[in-house]
Amino acid sequence: MTNELELNRILFKDYESKIMSAAEAALLIDNNSVVGSSGFTKAGDSKSVLPAFAKRAETEDVAITLITGASLGYTTDSDLANNNALIRRMPFMADPALRKSINEYKVKYIDQHLSETIEQLICGHIAAIDTAIIEASSIDENGNIIPTTSIGNSAFFASQAKKIIIEINTKIPVTFRGIHDSIVPKSYPDRDVINIQTVSDRIGTEFITIDPAKVVGIVFTDITDQPAIISEPDDKTSAISKHLLNFFEKEVEKGKLTYALLPLQAGIGKVANAVLTGFVGSKFKNLTMYSEVLQDSTFELFDSGNMDFASGSSITVSEGCYENVLKNFDKYKNKLILRPQNISNAPEVLRRLGIIGINTAIEFDIYGNVNSTHISGTKMMNGIGGSGDFARNAYLSIFVCQAASKENKISHVLPMVSHVDHTEHDVDILVTDQGLADLRGLCPRERAEVIIENCVHPEYREEIREYFERAKETVGGHTPHILSEAFKFHTRLKETGSMKQ
Amino acid sequence: MTNELELNRILFKDYESKIMSAAEAALLIDNNSVVGSSGFTKAGDSKSVLPAFAKRAETEDVAITLITGASLGYTTDSDLANNNALIRRMPFMADPALRKSINEYKVKYIDQHLSETIEQLICGHIAAIDTAIIEASSIDENGNIIPTTSIGNSAFFASQAKKIIIEINTKIPVTFRGIHDSIVPKSYPDRDVINIQTVSDRIGTEFITIDPAKVVGIVFTDITDQPAIISEPDDKTSAISKHLLNFFEKEVEKGKLTYALLPLQAGIGKVANAVLTGFVGSKFKNLTMYSEVLQDSTFELFDSGNMDFASGSSITVSEGCYENVLKNFDKYKNKLILRPQNISNAPEVLRRLGIIGINTAIEFDIYGNVNSTHISGTKMMNGIGGSGDFARNAYLSIFVCQAASKENKISHVLPMVSHVDHTEHDVDILVTDQGLADLRGLCPRERAEVIIENCVHPEYREEIREYFERAKETVGGHTPHILSEAFKFHTRLKETGSMKQ
Repeated sequence: MTNELELNRILFKDYESKIMSAAEAALLIDNNSVVGSSGFTKAGDSKSVLPAFAKRAETEDVAITLITGASLGYTTDSDLANNNALIRRMPFMADPALRKSINEYKVKYIDQHLSETIEQLICGHIAAIDTAIIEASSIDENGNIIPTTSIGNSAFFASQAKKIIIEINTKIPVTFRGIHDSIVPKSYPDRDVINIQTVSDRIGTEFITIDPAKVVGIVFTDITDQPAIISEPDDKTSAISKHLLNFFEKEVEKGKLTYALLPLQAGIGKVANAVLTGFVGSKFKNLTMYSEVLQDSTFELFDSGNMDFASGSSITVSEGCYENVLKNFDKYKNKLILRPQNISNAPEVLRRLGIIGINTAIEFDIYGNVNSTHISGTKMMNGIGGSGDFARNAYLSIFVCQAASKENKISHVLPMVSHVDHTEHDVDILVTDQGLADLRGLCPRERAEVIIENCVHPEYREEIREYFERAKETVGGHTPHILSEAFKFHTRLKETGSMKQ
Repeated sequence: MTNELELNRILFKDYESKIMSAAEAALLIDNNSVVGSSGFTKAGDSKSVLPAFAKRAETEDVAITLITGASLGYTTDSDLANNNALIRRMPFMADPALRKSINEYKVKYIDQHLSETIEQLICGHIAAIDTAIIEASSIDENGNIIPTTSIGNSAFFASQAKKIIIEINTKIPVTFRGIHDSIVPKSYPDRDVINIQTVSDRIGTEFITIDPAKVVGIVFTDITDQPAIISEPDDKTSAISKHLLNFFEKEVEKGKLTYALLPLQAGIGKVANAVLTGFVGSKFKNLTMYSEVLQDSTFELFDSGNMDFASGSSITVSEGCYENVLKNFDKYKNKLILRPQNISNAPEVLRRLGIIGINTAIEFDIYGNVNSTHISGTKMMNGIGGSGDFARNAYLSIFVCQAASKENKISHVLPMVSHVDHTEHDVDILVTDQGLADLRGLCPRERAEVIIENCVHPEYREEIREYFERAKETVGGHTPHILSEAFKFHTRLKETGSMKQ
């Protein structure tokens, strides 16, 4: 059943007796237990055991609390949700069927800062991991795990779990190693300094240390990560990218930054990707990243010679880029580190390095508050992810979104956001395709001026300005608002299908 | 003019020629310049030069941007505001006349996380300090400053300023030294680890290092800090304290904490003080603090033997406690450290130590979002202070407030807060006199259940529950809200003077 090439992936012979099918492994997961699975934005996720558990739930009344790094690939979350196999889910997801289940309150979703899941587990604020499922490229001679394209929370899950199931993915070459830097924090009050002083500093091991006695199953798979879909830049994302690159140019001219900038962090998605791609062939050299997700643009910037080093928690790329990275791994190996997400997103490290954080907003308001998670204040979209970790601790906290969408029926700049994920205190720069608002050192009324002037879509500018002027006149205060009208764009959308007057 | 006792305070003889009156020093402050002044919650503030500048502004058209540690004592901010001597003010204030000016937009107020003012200055996000005014107890033989009852941002102000004015306060004994730990961060990309691993670790110097060539004036004063007003615990604050102490007892029983707990942080005010006072004579021993403000309760806990060590950025106490600390300084000296506020509030240190943060809310909502700054979403009260630094990075983030006030015309628990300073992601425990809600690991709808059940005042419970039930039925979603009604309590208050139906 298991061939020689597969067995070569296990240098710890005691595990050979643990080899089993995904269906058998799925039976080892207890009903009502807490499962911690590898997987960060589709990279390095469980590709057979969690799907097999979803299959098991088709005929059996079983459900789990599932904690991951971030979102999973393929239809794993859909299948689990559709088969009612999820009680609780955290800290992030981006799956349409699961989203629906969450918004129908069939799954209890706990939306967390990605740096904090391990904190909550280690402190006992949330129930501990019973079973860890970790994707590996191979097992070393001590039974330790060589991870694949992500680390996420895997090292901690393995350390806390009572049982460990390992998925060895033979699609990942055994040579794909040496880029991981695995570490598990100590409990309070013995927590150590996170001694990272440049993006390339290493503080851990190249493998995930585990107790072999806890390994209950080894499963082989040969499925690639689900490819990321890279949208070509369109007029709007190009405009946002241009505004931002102009801004960086000016900061360099003023002597505030060099052309190496400071370590970049970019959220997932086409706007962030367009911004990073904008650096290709530019004057910006010796760039570095200290981010969560390394996307196609990271490798384009390596290839173009504009970027020197990138640290992340996962490599989440398109099919072509995935093949390139695996095939030419030697070329990239010394320029990469993958870290646990409590390290990639650690407030301590972010503030020490001085990150430039670029994240995507669903909507923002005239005073600089940002909504990253909720549609019309009620429906969960994906989750806050790491945006809060980065925005709070960044040298520069930048949020981007289009000014308006859906034939301009929706304005993404509003009098008041319907849900706040990032407060006015944590936002430095806002960018839409219409322009850029630099909020640094401004009080709320000044921010409103520059946001209305630079970021609002022209179709909405007049009405939003009128609101602001009337709020100043009739209510006044530090942050003028007419509370009875603050959500009028949202309620109009609900009533008429458009925010337009 | 200057007597011998005063001159004994200056061991650096070059400064003797710089001795002048406060009125003379105030003339050295340029119109339209940026002034950085010592002073943190009334402690160690400028007691003669800033007041003299306010006086100068009575007859002269001069105004400044004033940056402090936190709030100032006496009527300094009032006098500056009333004489139109302030252009911008940051990062915190708690003065009635200044509050009025801010809400009338006569002063531009930039409300900042207290850890971040230095970050914004060092990065050039806000205009640099022109003149620093620092209170000292004495000057050492190298011209360096021995600070008084606070550090705040003083060390950084002195390092960045072009001109320095020192106020030597002879009310502080020259023996009041050895408790300060002064340090200034390096600029990016050379930022160091903040190597504090226990509350008592020292990383800096006992004095504020300055370039003597920048000193333009030395002024003598003999005015004590304005005393803090300590309100006796009332029924509500006692109830809140009791709920919280019961909670800590249960955490100890569960084995999650020991009776030493973890380092405590408590915001300023009577509720936090009542909670801390509740530990006096309790089973909780070997307590420590890693906080901003050390209040009377800190010294009561030293005296009762319940607390071992306290780190803060200021000592802000009542008249009696002030006299006691100065008189019996040797007794307390080895149990105290005062740090710059970018260190007392450093995300890095807070997450490493695992703080229990107790802060006061103006209002919170059924999903766990907290408003710390704005009355009815518009009028600035005081500012966010350090509450965001602590809440985000705490082991436990606790917010307290009374359930209702003003003959119960105002409910402090609401369907939706009118301004968000701390998001649902950053709040673990909410406490009112009615009870305690433990939100850890709960999704929004579950949080609403425990908050409505435990925290809401009975007069409002039914209406808030009805809102929640109807929002679930008619709108649904992850965080059910009826946006057109979410602020109905606030709008009713505005219309009728009461939130009651």
